[in-house]
This record gives sequence, C-alpha cells and structure tokens, in this order.
Amino acid sequence: MERVERHVCHDGYQEVWKHASPTLQCEMRFGIYLPSAALRGQPCPVLYWLSGLTCTEQNFITKSGAQRYAAEHGLIVVAPDTSPRGDEVADDPSYDVGKGAGFYVNATRQPWATHYRMYDYVVDELPALIEAQFPVTQARAISGHSMGGHGALTVALRNPARYRSVSAFSPIVAPSQVPWGEKAFTAYLGDDRQAWKDYDAVELVKAAAERLPLRIDQGGSDEFLDKQLKPELLRAACDAAGHPLELNLRSGYDHSYYFIASFIGEHISYHARALR
Amino acid sequence: MERVERHVCHDGYQEVWKHASPTLQCEMRFGIYLPSAALRGQPCPVLYWLSGLTCTEQNFITKSGAQRYAAEHGLIVVAPDTSPRGDEVADDPSYDVGKGAGFYVNATRQPWATHYRMYDYVVDELPALIEAQFPVTQARAISGHSMGGHGALTVALRNPARYRSVSAFSPIVAPSQVPWGEKAFTAYLGDDRQAWKDYDAVELVKAAAERLPLRIDQGGSDEFLDKQLKPELLRAACDAAGHPLELNLRSGYDHSYYFIASFIGEHISYHARALR
Repeated sequence: MERVERHVCHDGYQEVWKHASPTLQCEMRFGIYLPSAALRGQPCPVLYWLSGLTCTEQNFITKSGAQRYAAEHGLIVVAPDTSPRGDEVADDPSYDVGKGAGFYVNATRQPWATHYRMYDYVVDELPALIEAQFPVTQARAISGHSMGGHGALTVALRNPARYRSVSAFSPIVAPSQVPWGEKAFTAYLGDDRQAWKDYDAVELVKAAAERLPLRIDQGGSDEFLDKQLKPELLRAACDAAGHPLELNLRSGYDHSYYFIASFIGEHISYHARALR
Repeated sequence: MERVERHVCHDGYQEVWKHASPTLQCEMRFGIYLPSAALRGQPCPVLYWLSGLTCTEQNFITKSGAQRYAAEHGLIVVAPDTSPRGDEVADDPSYDVGKGAGFYVNATRQPWATHYRMYDYVVDELPALIEAQFPVTQARAISGHSMGGHGALTVALRNPARYRSVSAFSPIVAPSQVPWGEKAFTAYLGDDRQAWKDYDAVELVKAAAERLPLRIDQGGSDEFLDKQLKPELLRAACDAAGHPLELNLRSGYDHSYYFIASFIGEHISYHARALR
C-alpha cells in the first residue's frame, strides 16, 4: 500500500492511497479523509462513499465539500474508485459499462468476471484493509451517488449487520427495470434476471430480513429521474414491505455534485448520529 | 450574453455565462453564484474571485465549496476565466504564459497585446456587465488564489474606492521578484521593469494613497512558498509603509483547493462584514 497524495484539509488529512487488490486483480486507488482526531490516533468511525458512473476516487474528494462535515463530526470518509483499472482490465467504449462503471457487482460473464468484483471489494477487501491500516472503530456507514447510491443501498441491504446506517443521493433504485442497469447487468451477469435480484434495491427490500432504514435525497430536476432513477419504485416496495424509507425530493436540484455539495452535510450528520 | 450552465446549489443558482468581450476581443465565460435572495430579485453585494494558473471559470465553482457560505451571507460570487480564450488568441506551450495565465495585466507587447487585457476586463468590463445584468448592489469585494491572489491585491490596491475589501489565498505578492512573474511580465510588458510596478502588490503598497487592509492566508507547506510567493516581502513592505495586513500562516496546508476549501468560509465572512 502506498500513499500517493496527502493534503491538509479542515485540520485533517485528505489522502489518496494505491494498493494491489487480490479481489480485483489490479492496482486500485481510494481516497480517505482522516479528521484531526484520527491524526492523534483516536479510533474514528468510517463512512464509505461509492461514486457514480465515469467517476474515480477523485470526484467526491475534490467536489463534495464533505471534509468540513467529516472534520466537525470526527468521521473518516473512504471513497474508492468505481471499477477495476489498468491496461489488462476489460473495457467497453461506452461510459456505462466497463471502466468507471463497475456497478458494485461480482461479474459472472467474461470478459468481465476476471476483474469486475466490486461487490466483494467494497463489502470485504476494502473495509478489512482500512481496519488494518487506519485508526478506525468497527462502526461503519455507507452512502453514494447514482450508480454508487445503488451500490450503497444494495450493499447495506445485503449486509445490515455491517453498517449502522445507509443513505444515497439520486440512486438507481431498480437497475433491473432501467436502461443503465439492464445494459450493465446483461453484460456482467448475463440474461438470467433471477441473478440480477441480488443487486437490485427494490428486489432486496422485498426480501430483507432486517429493516435497516434507508435515507435518500433526490433532485426534482434530475435529468435522469424519470428514465433511470425512478425512486417511486423504491417507495412502493418499501411501503409494501414495511421497510423504513426517508425519501427527500429536493425541488430544482439536478444530478450534479452541486446537489451533493448542498446536502452532504445533512447526510454526514445523519450518519454521525448512527455511528455514535 | 448566454447562459451555458445552471445548477441549483444551496438554494441558489450556480450559473456559467458566456459573452463576447470587447476588451479581450474574444468570447469569455464566467461563473456566478446567485443566492436565494438574488433569485427573489433582492440586490446583493458581489465578491469577485480571481483564479490561478491553468484554471478556467470552473475550478473555483466546482472545488471551493464557496456556495454554502455565499448562501449563508447572501453574497453573489463571480468567478471569471484567467485569460482570453479561443483559436485566434496567442498562446505558449508552457503553463505559465498565455492561455490560463493572463496575470491580470494589460499586455503591451505582441503577440499578447491584442487580447491579453485581463486587468481592464476585471476592473471595468466584467463589473459593468454584472451590474447591468444581475440584481447587485454597488458593494464589491475581491479575492483570489495564487496568480489570482496577485490579481486581487493589485486590482484592489489600484482601485481602493471600488472595493470594500480584498483578500487572497497564497498570492504571488512580488511578481517582479519571482520566476513566474518575471517570465510573464517580460512576455506581456517587456523588459522595462518600471512598467511592472503597476502590477506588483509589494510595489503598489509602497505608493498606495489609500490604505485598504489586506487579508492573506498562506499555507505553511505550500510547495511554491519560498520560490514564487514570498509573503515576507509583502509583510516588510506593509510594515515600512504602515499598510494594514493580516497575514495568516496556516501550518501544514499546501497550494491546492483543499487549502482554499478549508478557509474560504472565513474569507467570505470577512467580506460579508465589509459589504454590509
């Protein structure tokens, strides 16, 4: 593991690390914000942030403004990349399959199955690495945006004992029912839609044994709202299953980081309460 | 004038506009944050932000997190590009002369003199445009980073009646005495160092008729501190001239936007107090 960036930010460190990932069979990077308490060696809880299509570990750490709030609450924030990387990793010319578009699944079809195991990376390898290398408690939370909101919801719904709280911005709540998800899941998982259900928040809510509350913020003027995001499908599934959901529709906001920056403070406060 | 971006952010609008600039003889872009009060038509004071080398109008608006504080204080924030742009505009292969490196001067040497008149653009054309097109008061403040910190200090020192307050992050305080400034000023203004004094904060402080206080934040681990920034030269000039200077050395911080994001809230509060 090697540190490739360190910047003082709000009295803590914003760092970027690279490491060889056995799960993904390639070199990966992640951003980590360490508040001042962590710099003094005090164990801090960890919020994992999963980014959206086309992103790397850089987008969230440069654009969200999360460090201010993480500093206030004494949270570590870990932001991984969105797919395996490197010349040896399969790719596709489109932006919504291949590099930058791992969709937080374990691919079962070639050419993807060799490297595209972002589900295992996020659930197992990355937390184990963080917990071995940084001063952290065992208290974890998870959040994300768009494809990463889908990742946060599905990872938390399948592993409720591992996360104290989950939230999402503009998530793809029903990938099995929208073009982005249908394209990516067909590539990574094949045509058998039964296999898709493990990676679909709407399907997971129907079958959830534990009812970890979901918190979502969704921009009302999001350009992907009607075709790709469809939060009403999650609302209906949660209503039917009795699953707790806080869905905040934010009038006028779009899909960009300007939306995330506007509400990341509220999300971090929400997670900080759950992590205490 | 044409709006090319609009995003809701912290209950206001972050917009980007393009316009034909008679001063620069090319099309220019600027970012403008309009807090909710401005959206209701209430005139708001304006903070101008001048960016550093290699930047466009995008860097500050996507990375600084300034919108949160501008929203709190009801400030409009205008962030222009750092040089003239377009295929017809002279350029240089290096990053520190030509496009992205206008240095906020009026060039007198060709091939630069035709388009590189960023001083006049920032002092006259841009405020006139903003004041004609947006709900603003006549209260102006100015700030910037690195080359833009140099721009903010020199513009304010030469036009103290036009600005209620001025601040800078990591400014080039003595361009006549450091490599970045010597290279750019030689290109834009020629070899006569007398002509450089109009664009050098240390020289302007010596001759200032009005004593507009200067507020500067400087990272102690800034990679350009010793060779290019040299805040001690401004401190000495201000001490000798009796010019008010608040110079905050911030231990550990570097030259990046992580530094700006950490202290932009304090700068905006400072300007908001002066603008009331």
